Amino acid sequence: MQQRKITLSESEIPDQWYNIVADMPNRPLPPLHPGTREPIGPDALAPLFPEELIKQEVSTERWIDIPDEVRNIYSLWRPTPMYRAYGLEKALDTPARIYYKYEGVSPSGSHKPNTAVAQAYYNKAAGVKRITTETGAGQWGSALSFACQHFGLECEVYMVRLSYEHKPYRKVMMNTWGATVYPSPSDRTEAGRKVLAKDPDTTGSLGIAISEAVERAATDPDTKYALGSVLNHVLLHQTIIGQEALLQMEKAGELPDVVIAPFGGGSNFAGIAFPFLRLSLTQGKQIRCVASEPASCPKLTRGQFRYDFGDTVGMTPLLPMYTLGHNFVPAPIHAGGLRYHGAGVIVSQLLKDGLIEARAHDNLEVFEAGIAFARAEGIIPAPEAAHGIATAIREAERCKEAGEDKVILINLCGHGNFDMKAYQDYFAGKIESHELTTAEIESSLAELDTPLA
Amino acid sequence: MQQRKITLSESEIPDQWYNIVADMPNRPLPPLHPGTREPIGPDALAPLFPEELIKQEVSTERWIDIPDEVRNIYSLWRPTPMYRAYGLEKALDTPARIYYKYEGVSPSGSHKPNTAVAQAYYNKAAGVKRITTETGAGQWGSALSFACQHFGLECEVYMVRLSYEHKPYRKVMMNTWGATVYPSPSDRTEAGRKVLAKDPDTTGSLGIAISEAVERAATDPDTKYALGSVLNHVLLHQTIIGQEALLQMEKAGELPDVVIAPFGGGSNFAGIAFPFLRLSLTQGKQIRCVASEPASCPKLTRGQFRYDFGDTVGMTPLLPMYTLGHNFVPAPIHAGGLRYHGAGVIVSQLLKDGLIEARAHDNLEVFEAGIAFARAEGIIPAPEAAHGIATAIREAERCKEAGEDKVILINLCGHGNFDMKAYQDYFAGKIESHELTTAEIESSLAELDTPLA
Repeated sequence: MQQRKITLSESEIPDQWYNIVADMPNRPLPPLHPGTREPIGPDALAPLFPEELIKQEVSTERWIDIPDEVRNIYSLWRPTPMYRAYGLEKALDTPARIYYKYEGVSPSGSHKPNTAVAQAYYNKAAGVKRITTETGAGQWGSALSFACQHFGLECEVYMVRLSYEHKPYRKVMMNTWGATVYPSPSDRTEAGRKVLAKDPDTTGSLGIAISEAVERAATDPDTKYALGSVLNHVLLHQTIIGQEALLQMEKAGELPDVVIAPFGGGSNFAGIAFPFLRLSLTQGKQIRCVASEPASCPKLTRGQFRYDFGDTVGMTPLLPMYTLGHNFVPAPIHAGGLRYHGAGVIVSQLLKDGLIEARAHDNLEVFEAGIAFARAEGIIPAPEAAHGIATAIREAERCKEAGEDKVILINLCGHGNFDMKAYQDYFAGKIESHELTTAEIESSLAELDTPLA
Repeated sequence: MQQRKITLSESEIPDQWYNIVADMPNRPLPPLHPGTREPIGPDALAPLFPEELIKQEVSTERWIDIPDEVRNIYSLWRPTPMYRAYGLEKALDTPARIYYKYEGVSPSGSHKPNTAVAQAYYNKAAGVKRITTETGAGQWGSALSFACQHFGLECEVYMVRLSYEHKPYRKVMMNTWGATVYPSPSDRTEAGRKVLAKDPDTTGSLGIAISEAVERAATDPDTKYALGSVLNHVLLHQTIIGQEALLQMEKAGELPDVVIAPFGGGSNFAGIAFPFLRLSLTQGKQIRCVASEPASCPKLTRGQFRYDFGDTVGMTPLLPMYTLGHNFVPAPIHAGGLRYHGAGVIVSQLLKDGLIEARAHDNLEVFEAGIAFARAEGIIPAPEAAHGIATAIREAERCKEAGEDKVILINLCGHGNFDMKAYQDYFAGKIESHELTTAEIESSLAELDTPLA
């Protein structure tokens, strides 16, 4: 029998996260104050995050210890399995060897609890009572609800209205773990009311939902805020994925030639890629790291590297990142997550420096990839995860043409059990190709008056 | 760090199924011909099942080899993890040590693929082109769709209309794996048309859907039929669960005092319980095995042990089993699977002989148990699975009162990702208590003119 699954024991859960900032040739530029546009220090983040997370946000230490309490909850689903994709290889008739790391075994079904649990832990330790957050497809809101439940914290989720309406069951899942969920924009915040006044029928965006959750935290001393991607400490927590994957690849006697992950704000990409990128940066290995994004929200492949706000209303610091402009709202036709207008600063700097790559995929290519994967491997991937599969299929087909037996590693960041509406739409021919025009991108960027990075 | 998860490596996937018939003090009575009511032999099953499965159906061998091709597909999700439920123990403040075996990691999210893959394999090997089946909550239909896809078989699913309407996403899941799904009763079969003529607004039942799928197989030489529970070979395939669980309990240095599983037709109960029951039957161990059923479909606790049909129309052989009568249709108010009117013959004989026990739980108790489990352990269980949790909670509370540190093992047969509508209804106060009256049960049984077993 061929060995398909590469597993680790509970005692092999890594005890440190990897902070790539320590090894970057060019460290990210500093954030700027939204008003003065002067560089700001960690203090500016104090209303939103507990001290330990702010320390991690600005840390340049290479290794950061994972608290036992966090590893203990990780053990509910970690270590996650890695699979050799024999079925997909056969279906593609490729000489490439394809592996995938499967994060869908977590209780909420994605990689998001890796950071949710850590953030809930540090907030609890700092005496915080309530955490607010935003969620798009619902993966992040579910993960944080689950994590808050474990530490006895209240959880308040602002869910992009489009998803709130299309994915009612994600909301029930959050309720089951004790969270309260509001469609965003809501009338509970200044930010929400402002947007609703302008456009009462808006389908919302992650940027707007972030503004709402941030405002709640900034105006209530018992409440802090949590972000599911983009920020340095979030990317840091996700490196548990790549740390495990390194051990698993070792057990398989392989080293990947290319590591591929879907890209929204950067956390699942960073999670699997950074520990491998470390080998390229510090040991001269040649491992390509490729981020997969939707053609309908293509900040890495078609955005601009400049300072921009993390939210829509402009409450957050200005961050140096690849962006489509903070007012960008992806067309509602785009199914699946990965709808955020910008990219995390670390990933942006790495892309700027040519140390990582990016690919964009059309809606239809993504669903074709997801279904091919489901039929070959069993697991039905979330549309987000299917973006990475689409990139891997392109690579495997290139290997076939070139006769190369490269090793491909995919981060399969979540299952599609809550995305059946999207698959249903695809089967009904309701999912259409969608690529932004250059004019649309230019117009969104033209609204910005922020400095180039 | 406490060890929470007990894992096995891929090479530890058992290579034999356990056939409890070899060790039963009283073997099941023979099936009877539906017309002549005389005992029938294996030949009678030939129109419906391939020869190898019929051999397994009547086998008295203790161990049956698992083909490599089946183990190879099992390795997509097996061995499944076992967990110590530290969170639940703490929430219940019980001295009992609670373990659960988690079958929700399979691609379709339940234990059902354990037999679906085996059945698809033997059908493929026999040159069959198409398999028909019925499905209630959708777990079984999904599992068979997944399995047929792997072996290149067509799959035709008759889905109980109530579930078809309440769970459209289960249908999409089956479509994603290439199956065709019809709401039952349908106008594609004599059986379906007959029921529709009598009651055009029926919400359907498993019994009716079985009649339809059986009719299709009986009338088309390229088509065979597959059943997801009840039959001996189905229970046999599920013993992979208990075989793994035995190894895992050994690794944990424990032996359960009580093994608990939800009960629909018997396959997930048999799957985990029989390998432990073997130790009681052959080695004098004292391991209680308890089946958990809904109070709204209580064949084990309130049904009658007699010959009855497996389907509604009366096409199947008469089987000696605990039954509520083959015309029994559970109230639509009952959420979750476990809606079948009868119990498998092996389990029925074991219950008759006092070798296993059964408990019935009200709807509300089941959802309370499911939510308590989700909050304590993370995983949101399928309502079916929550029945087993409800029994375990009663046991753990009894242990607390008695100050006993018993070891409880639960078969957590599936996740609730496709059951959020039921949880939503629960939160909205729409799930009501529901217990059958004695008159209702007596009236359903009074319609039978079949022999007592």
